[in-house]
Order: sequence, then structure tokens, then C-alpha cells
Amino acid sequence: MEFARVVGNVVATRKEEKVRGRKFLVLQPVNLDMKPSGSVKVGVDAVGAGEGELVLFATGSTARQTHLTENRPTDCVIMAIVDSVDVKNERVYDKAEEERSE
Amino acid sequence: MEFARVVGNVVATRKEEKVRGRKFLVLQPVNLDMKPSGSVKVGVDAVGAGEGELVLFATGSTARQTHLTENRPTDCVIMAIVDSVDVKNERVYDKAEEERSE
Amino acid sequence: MEFARVVGNVVATRKEEKVRGRKFLVLQPVNLDMKPSGSVKVGVDAVGAGEGELVLFATGSTARQTHLTENRPTDCVIMAIVDSVDVKNERVYDKAEEERSE
Amino acid sequence: MEFARVVGNVVATRKEEKVRGRKFLVLQPVNLDMKPSGSVKVGVDAVGAGEGELVLFATGSTARQTHLTENRPTDCVIMAIVDSVDVKNERVYDKAEEERSE
Amino acid sequence: MEFARVVGNVVATRKEEKVRGRKFLVLQPVNLDMKPSGSVKVGVDAVGAGEGELVLFATGSTARQTHLTENRPTDCVIMAIVDSVDVKNERVYDKAEEERSE
Repeated sequence: MEFARVVGNVVATRKEEKVRGRKFLVLQPVNLDMKPSGSVKVGVDAVGAGEGELVLFATGSTARQTHLTENRPTDCVIMAIVDSVDVKNERVYDKAEEERSE
Repeated sequence: MEFARVVGNVVATRKEEKVRGRKFLVLQPVNLDMKPSGSVKVGVDAVGAGEGELVLFATGSTARQTHLTENRPTDCVIMAIVDSVDVKNERVYDKAEEERSE
Repeated sequence: MEFARVVGNVVATRKEEKVRGRKFLVLQPVNLDMKPSGSVKVGVDAVGAGEGELVLFATGSTARQTHLTENRPTDCVIMAIVDSVDVKNERVYDKAEEERSE
Repeated sequence: MEFARVVGNVVATRKEEKVRGRKFLVLQPVNLDMKPSGSVKVGVDAVGAGEGELVLFATGSTARQTHLTENRPTDCVIMAIVDSVDVKNERVYDKAEEERSE
Repeated sequence: MEFARVVGNVVATRKEEKVRGRKFLVLQPVNLDMKPSGSVKVGVDAVGAGEGELVLFATGSTARQTHLTENRPTDCVIMAIVDSVDVKNERVYDKAEEERSE
């Protein structure tokens, strides 16, 4: 999995019928310093993520193994909403703190 | 999935027989500013996309899970025709507007 | 799928037994201007491609879904021999023309 | 597989239910000189790895084939804790020696 | 598949039990000029490759399809030991010649 910010969403009325009703979110992959890293992806949401949240996404066939995406043709799925990340005993991300400072 | 413009098509009379009758479209991946990003792909069309349209494509085994590509050997499929993209509450792409300004 | 030129071949007497008898071709991925792009791959041929030809290759599990490669361990297969490519209503590649000018 | 250092961990209370109870570790891929190389991944632990250890991780569908991750949606798994690496008859990594010098 | 030199090996006493007894080799991907290209991989050996040899490796789910790796969690496998490579009617690699000049 990789870290990404949910930065937006996509409207598409003509889409493969097996993914109809699924929300398409725009994901900006980020580094541990929360800066953009790599090209934008569009993922299906499996956990109810909202814009601005830090999430973990999975790609490849794994994206079709969650409850919401089973046997649906997607190659990118949001697996988790991140609460906190610790690196070398230092907190590099804290969702609660980020929300307080907004 | 990733964003791409449909920029052309490929004619190939000698192709693996399981993909005969499938349209091969040339895809230029693009960023959120709609500028080219990354190398060109050739995808099978699952939604009736046309040249110039912004689409979402999926890669890997997912490409074989749509109605049109089930059990057919393709590693890239057009999943959706994009109507609009919103990023941080701003519309970065609007198909209707683009068509009006053409 | 991606575009590549068939530029050579590989001889390997000791190979995984399930791919014995399969031809291993050296593929140089190319851009729409037919210039090299990205690192060389070695693919199994599913369509009878020859050296110098422009082809489309597929990677990943898809490579095991053609008639010639079914259930054989390969992650790269030549899917089609390209006759022509049109981009924005312009012909960027024409096999017949290329052969005449040789 | 690729080499990585386990550099941290992720807390996520809202995650796809099939991966609940699984530990998410932050992985920094490294070169043979043990310097960072490529972007950070988040993997599920299949072998009881701890922070600071050099590990081998696998990606893609392979990540769902270990005892701990079978049929669970993950695209990155820690496969092994590295004891030593020899390159061209030279030891480039030795876990025991590293631990002594700490 | 891609070309690589076998440059070393990895010892790991704690590894996912399904890959126990399998040899982990360090692979340095190379170009057609036999110069390093891309980051190091660790693969499982399916053909009895030795250090210094030029090999072809496959990645992804394909890596689990050889006789030695069937249903074992690996995402990288050595598929063949290369005897010779011809590019545009020129021999760019010859194992026998290389061994004579050593």
C-alpha cells in the first residue's frame, strides 16, 4: 500500500456497468513528509474516506478483494483512513492534531 | 485507475485471436492540469470512448474483468468517460465546457 | 499494452521447462515517434512477429492468457503486429510505407 | 522481492474489515548500500518483523499468498527478515554485526 | 521478462514458511550493453542459476507458475540462464565467450 491524500472526485456517467454506484476519488500519493510524490490515481472507496484525509490505497488485483469491490473491475482501492504514522519513534502524521490546527 | 486522453487508434490485422474485433485505442496519460504525463498506452475500449475524450483506464488483471474484456488477454482497458473532475472544490475538468469552447 | 520494436532474440538452453519451445524476443519499447522509451523487455511471441516489426506487447498475468502462452509462466507477450497508428487524424506509423522505403 | 528497512508503523482505526488485526508497517526500500531508494510502502507483516530490521517484501497478488495474508486484500507483504547479504563474495549486510555496533 | 546478472545471495532464517528451502538470489537488472539498469531485485531460482550468470527473470503472479515456485508466495523468479543475445544481427552477449575471457 501507499500513502495518499484524497484531493477530489470524478463524475463519469458512462462507465463500465460493474463499477456503477461506486465513488471515484482522486488520490495524490504523498511521502512521509506529506508532500506530493508520483502521479495522481483514481481509486474506488472501500472505507468511506472524505476529501483531505490521508489514506492507504492498494493497487492491482488486490483492489478487487475488499467487501465493496469484490469481483468489480478496479485496480485501485482505498483500504484505510490513517489516524497516525510513527517513523523512528517520531509522530510524522496525526489526524486529530491536523484537524485541530485547521 | 489513471486519467488519459484518447489520442488515436491502432490497426493490427495480425493479432492474438481472443482480442479480434476489439478496438485498440491510443491513450496519452495526463495530469490534473490535463498535460501529458508518462508514456503512451494502448487500451481496449469497454465504454465506447471517442478520440479527444478524457477517460479513466485500468491496468493489470483488472483489464480482463469488464463485460467486453472478460477472459480476453488485455492489460489495459478504458473504464469510464469522464464528465468532470473536482479537486479541492475547484472544477479542473468539465467535458461540456470543453466541448462548447471547441 | 505498449508499443515496441522487435530488435533481437535470446537463446537459453536452460530455461523453466513450461516455456521450452517458446521463442524469446527482445523488445525495445518505443514512443509514438518510434524512438526508444524505457528499458528493454523479453517477450514470448503469440503472433509470429519478426525482427524490425512494430508490435504491441502486454505484461503481467495477461501474458498467460493467449493461445500460445496459456498457463505458461511468462510476464510479457507479443499480442499484435501493428499495421498502422493514427494520432489526431495523422498517420504516425505505416508498416507498408516503412517496408517500401527500406 | 526487494530490500527495505522497517522504519515505522501506521495506526488506522477505519480500515477494510478483512485486514483488521493486521499490523501495518512503514517500509523504506533500500539499495545494496542500504541507502533509501524509491518511495515508501506500507506492508502487512508475515514474519514478525520489528523496526530497524532489514526485510524482503513482495508486492502484487503474491502479497495475498502467505499464511497470514491468504485471501486478505493487501498488495505488499514482508516475506523475510534478512540475516546477511553477500554480493560478489563480499558481505554487504550482516544483521548480527549491525546489532553489535549499535 | 528482463535481463539481470546474478550478483549475490541472501540468508534469511526467519521467512514465510511457504518459501523455506528456496534460494534467494540478488539480481541486478542490466541493459543490452550489460550495464546496470534499475534497482536490485531478489528472486527465487527456478533453473539452477549461479553467481555471475546472465539470466531472465519474471515478476508478478507469473513468478508463482514455475515448477519450483507453484503456489509459493514469490513475486520474482529466475526463468532462464541466457546463452546468447542477438540484437540487429549482432551478438551482444555470448556466455561461452565471456567464460573464455575470464
